Amino acid sequence: MIARGVMLGPDQPVIIHMLDIEPAAEALNGVKMELIDAAFPLLKDVVATTNVVEACQGVNIAVMVGGFPRKEGASGCQSSQHQRTYLERICTFNSGEKHHLPCLDHNRALGQISEKLNVHVSDVRNVIIWGNHSSTQYPDINHATVKTTNGEESVRDAIANDNWLNTEFITTVQQRGATIIKARKLSSALSAASAACDHIRDWVLGTPKGTWVSMGVYSDGSYGIQPGIIYSFPVTCEKGQWSIVNGLKIDELSREKMDATAKELMEEKTLAYSCLIDD
Amino acid sequence: MIARGVMLGPDQPVIIHMLDIEPAAEALNGVKMELIDAAFPLLKDVVATTNVVEACQGVNIAVMVGGFPRKEGASGCQSSQHQRTYLERICTFNSGEKHHLPCLDHNRALGQISEKLNVHVSDVRNVIIWGNHSSTQYPDINHATVKTTNGEESVRDAIANDNWLNTEFITTVQQRGATIIKARKLSSALSAASAACDHIRDWVLGTPKGTWVSMGVYSDGSYGIQPGIIYSFPVTCEKGQWSIVNGLKIDELSREKMDATAKELMEEKTLAYSCLIDD
Repeated sequence: MIARGVMLGPDQPVIIHMLDIEPAAEALNGVKMELIDAAFPLLKDVVATTNVVEACQGVNIAVMVGGFPRKEGASGCQSSQHQRTYLERICTFNSGEKHHLPCLDHNRALGQISEKLNVHVSDVRNVIIWGNHSSTQYPDINHATVKTTNGEESVRDAIANDNWLNTEFITTVQQRGATIIKARKLSSALSAASAACDHIRDWVLGTPKGTWVSMGVYSDGSYGIQPGIIYSFPVTCEKGQWSIVNGLKIDELSREKMDATAKELMEEKTLAYSCLIDD
Repeated sequence: MIARGVMLGPDQPVIIHMLDIEPAAEALNGVKMELIDAAFPLLKDVVATTNVVEACQGVNIAVMVGGFPRKEGASGCQSSQHQRTYLERICTFNSGEKHHLPCLDHNRALGQISEKLNVHVSDVRNVIIWGNHSSTQYPDINHATVKTTNGEESVRDAIANDNWLNTEFITTVQQRGATIIKARKLSSALSAASAACDHIRDWVLGTPKGTWVSMGVYSDGSYGIQPGIIYSFPVTCEKGQWSIVNGLKIDELSREKMDATAKELMEEKTLAYSCLIDD
């Protein structure tokens, strides 16, 4: 996808650096061969390495991928512990911003709404994922709209089924990762990779006028969320800068769910810090 | 890739039908969920089915994928036998043309030449893959050119190493599939899928002026190849029609290698017919 211009647009040449652990070196070289064999017009070079310094040399954008695919029953956080040391070393080289990926959840919410309304997914916009990239995330459609022949209508009015929107819709999006694993016996691959590209494209090339996306960014205290945690907010981007969409009206149900996922993130932050100090 | 517009261009909406065997139904549904979750603007609908009639209903373009990934030591032909019945049933519904995929080999040849010359792959054009999509294929660079600051130069002159071109280059391209399997412990995936998209894009949307691609098409007797076998030729496409590039000068080494791969295809044709009659 990156070499096809999905991430940075059809006119941006790219050099792909791939870093993996030593036991995967031969397979990584196989991936490098396949990238060369695909003869991508935008791909200027490929570096495949197990050396973190070489991997990070001159890099503009770093995408960090979980070291082991999730199996049934495992959460993303558990598998992330496997690459803690790796993360620490990367962070030394990466003075840039670090986001997490609610874009996948955001796309999942768009997908569920468009399926329910039997409209095309590109006609739905401005859903929000609040909070953690976990099952406490809160997919919020209170500000989402759908294109109709007469303009735009609120998703809540169009669906006209508050019970579904306030219960089944929310749990479907929250549990979607587990549902995919159950079906595929493997965690999301295509949709996660696609969301990573969407996220970086939105960030670097900007969001369309009037449309926001969900990004996990440092909280600045907006919407009463504790500053300093990485929390998914509605965000617009322009010229490589993101800014949180402010001033949205938050109802009581939303407030409760936004606080619950913030609480989980605070607990995870405490856990993460305790690991960093422990050994 | 299809849902991103790689196959049919960035303005062509698509409906993807996916057919698999019964034991893979749940995993197939997982893939469908991931396609929905990716919120692709061009993807109008997804059909996931184990029913061949439903799968083929209203389909414009069919891509047939080997049922089992090749393992080390297996050839593509052997694994194709697993899906013979499936192929027969598909062919009943598919009155269109059937190609095979030397595009992958063509891209591999471009990749090897650009690596050797240390130029960008999009600066090299008009390599040819002659014959079978197997290790007897003949990658021919006698008509290939590379862009230079002064225009275009023949690849043979630019590389100025006939020994490499006539031996190592040829075997590297011929054996590339096996090399990838050795490294990845799995057959080519990314590069094969990418080549399938390239092939159909070239076919449907046309080849750039002055550039040909390699396609496995029914021989019309061009270059002395027996009519009626599916053989890879240099081909240009316009408005959905392919035509073999004629009049290229064939040297003695090329003639020999083109005939050897034709001989193998004749033998495979005989074998295939014997299977169809046997039970």
